[in-house]
Amino acid sequence: MEPWQLTATEALAKFKDGSLTVEDYAKSLLARIEKRDEAVKAWAYLNPELVIEQAKKLDQVPPEKRGPLHGVAIAVKDVIYTKDMPTQFNSPIYEGDAPKVDAASILTLRHAGALILGKTTTTEFASTLYGGKTSNAHDPSRTPGGSSSGSGAAVGDFQAPIGLGTQTGGSTIRPGSFNGIYAFKPTWNSISREGQKIYSLLFDTLGLYARSVEDLELLADVFALEDDEPAAGAPFEVKGAKFAVVKTTAWDQAGPGTRAAMELGAKLLRDHGAEVEEIELPPEFNEAPEFHRILLHSEGRVSYLPEYKTAKDKLHPFLCGHVENEHKISRAAQLKAFDGMAALRPKIDAIAGRYAAILTPSVPDVAPVGLYSTGSASFNSIWTGFHTPVTNIPGFKGEADMPIGLSLVAPRYHDRHLLAVSKAVGKIFESEGGWERKNL
Amino acid sequence: MEPWQLTATEALAKFKDGSLTVEDYAKSLLARIEKRDEAVKAWAYLNPELVIEQAKKLDQVPPEKRGPLHGVAIAVKDVIYTKDMPTQFNSPIYEGDAPKVDAASILTLRHAGALILGKTTTTEFASTLYGGKTSNAHDPSRTPGGSSSGSGAAVGDFQAPIGLGTQTGGSTIRPGSFNGIYAFKPTWNSISREGQKIYSLLFDTLGLYARSVEDLELLADVFALEDDEPAAGAPFEVKGAKFAVVKTTAWDQAGPGTRAAMELGAKLLRDHGAEVEEIELPPEFNEAPEFHRILLHSEGRVSYLPEYKTAKDKLHPFLCGHVENEHKISRAAQLKAFDGMAALRPKIDAIAGRYAAILTPSVPDVAPVGLYSTGSASFNSIWTGFHTPVTNIPGFKGEADMPIGLSLVAPRYHDRHLLAVSKAVGKIFESEGGWERKNL
Repeated sequence: MEPWQLTATEALAKFKDGSLTVEDYAKSLLARIEKRDEAVKAWAYLNPELVIEQAKKLDQVPPEKRGPLHGVAIAVKDVIYTKDMPTQFNSPIYEGDAPKVDAASILTLRHAGALILGKTTTTEFASTLYGGKTSNAHDPSRTPGGSSSGSGAAVGDFQAPIGLGTQTGGSTIRPGSFNGIYAFKPTWNSISREGQKIYSLLFDTLGLYARSVEDLELLADVFALEDDEPAAGAPFEVKGAKFAVVKTTAWDQAGPGTRAAMELGAKLLRDHGAEVEEIELPPEFNEAPEFHRILLHSEGRVSYLPEYKTAKDKLHPFLCGHVENEHKISRAAQLKAFDGMAALRPKIDAIAGRYAAILTPSVPDVAPVGLYSTGSASFNSIWTGFHTPVTNIPGFKGEADMPIGLSLVAPRYHDRHLLAVSKAVGKIFESEGGWERKNL
Repeated sequence: MEPWQLTATEALAKFKDGSLTVEDYAKSLLARIEKRDEAVKAWAYLNPELVIEQAKKLDQVPPEKRGPLHGVAIAVKDVIYTKDMPTQFNSPIYEGDAPKVDAASILTLRHAGALILGKTTTTEFASTLYGGKTSNAHDPSRTPGGSSSGSGAAVGDFQAPIGLGTQTGGSTIRPGSFNGIYAFKPTWNSISREGQKIYSLLFDTLGLYARSVEDLELLADVFALEDDEPAAGAPFEVKGAKFAVVKTTAWDQAGPGTRAAMELGAKLLRDHGAEVEEIELPPEFNEAPEFHRILLHSEGRVSYLPEYKTAKDKLHPFLCGHVENEHKISRAAQLKAFDGMAALRPKIDAIAGRYAAILTPSVPDVAPVGLYSTGSASFNSIWTGFHTPVTNIPGFKGEADMPIGLSLVAPRYHDRHLLAVSKAVGKIFESEGGWERKNL
């Protein structure tokens, strides 16, 4: 097995037993990137020399001083500040811009010994649905999703074991599904968003990508994610657990891939001894997608004022529209949405708390052909609005053997619980869901 | 009248009619600062050469291209990024740190033609109550308040007409009252907080200081603050308006200065033809201070994780305590506070909406003697939690002729309305409240 094929957990074991140096690991990943970059184009900035230099430094750290992520390579979405690399937001306004500052997440990761590989592509400010150069890890003619396009594609394509994304609508979960990887949007503000470009204060969340739940748990440790209930001594068992299936009001947008995955996902859980109950959220939840839309536009009105004032001609019309309040959203409507969404949060917690997790679609279907549109966040935005943790579990396949994932959702601050459930469910979906990775 | 004595509005008029250059204005302010700095020590960073260079550049701008704040000098709290100056958060961890980036507020202000004077002192990360070197503008033996210590003192001492602060508890309103100036905490997230150090995402708000409400209105224009109801053609009239007096559950902490100011404030409003009704908030509001405390600690737990991990010995024990969750705040308690505070917001809006504004204390009393403690936020934290706009109106005096202000509060997104009310009320309180500026 080549080093680039390893998960973070596997690489760590090899660093520990001395069978792999960080430098060789980095070289293997850089070779993989070089080979695949023409097809995938996941990177907005990558400086191989800097990577090797950092890797050599990590190899110098004596074993007893190594951090929990010693040498683990991380792809960073280019809306997150890194003090030794440019941060450009895929915006012509910030071309070549390189503030000398690390985001909070980067500070924490570096302190844990992570190797920051480079910056990955994003849609403009992680705020539009319009793709760039990056392709899907599994088919260069298809979108990787967005806005965390590059991180999703890089992790899906074995160019990095771990990726940082962000989610304001569906920007972490969608690329997770499209590229066949695990994606984790933790509870809102459970990881500091300092140094991450603001679109919506109320929704923006740092998102995490990996190819195994063990790797997500590693990150959860480093970011000090803690539930009230400590993890059970024994792993979570699907057998005897109760799951809810929630199709949401976006269900009419679900294509054949997602419909089949939802059916098979529920069947597999039942086959493995779980109780699966399809439920409909109470009617008051029907307003949630519209609340999300109103708040997104209203918060974008504030966030992009500086760019609008200083460089309107270089700001996407969609974002200019936010600042201009093109939909004439009143303050009263904004507050109704703000308070309405707030009132739904404890209610969804109560509903989700009755189950091991909610099973719900991640996407309408497989990644669409074409790079212009990064797809739809219809199945994600309500959970982002509710602040609940969400994971994408890969394993299913749709049209043209492309991957499809399903989301699991738990109540707020049940992040560790959700990861434990995701590990057990992921094992089943990955082995019996029917999708096979072909890019290994 | 010396240029340093001018409000922003007055200076703008002189730039416009050609009777003052920005350079001469800057020199006058720098001379004032030089004269007074030994007593007040408001600045964390001030580079006179850079100021003069910027002023000269502004003088070169042809009249038709000048912005709405052309030449107006602004003191910036040192928790807000400025790309040409260090940003040090009064933390030894960030000593000399100077990321090459402007906060969103600074981008907007520079685009409007403002002259960024320098960085003003703050308590550590704007997150503790422990003062630094800065003194009150009116008595060097007394605290200027905090955490926006330097901006409050600088504006109070005529070292700058406008100051930027922040508020998470009472960090804008308290220094406003202690230094005898207008302070304005707008509705939460109505001005972008990008590039401003995060303590609590849910509470942190950019705050504004000035010595006249006209100046705050100038800033409100630049930051595009808009209510649903456009401003009335005629100025707000106190006569015939209805005010509520709310003493809050912190009233037992009110000293003689604040008690007298509240009584006189209500009397002056009545004398000028307003109806003033003392109301008590419903019992469910009694939990608000505790909700605020719980959320502050819980959000600080996330915000200071990177500093705790990388440089715990240089982080104040109070903030280490947040990260260590020293009060053992459960996620359940955090969510109860989060949802509880959210549920109170529309309720306080409805109550405040029945009045022109709520009149409530800004502080327990005048600025205490001593620089170690910056005083108490007991009268401010609930309004910060409610996200409502608040102004401090100066005009009253307490012990040793020190200034005392009172707060006016309006429903969320009634910022322009609140400024209009503040202008009329301020005229009365400043002329009849009994306090006299002696530092002119």
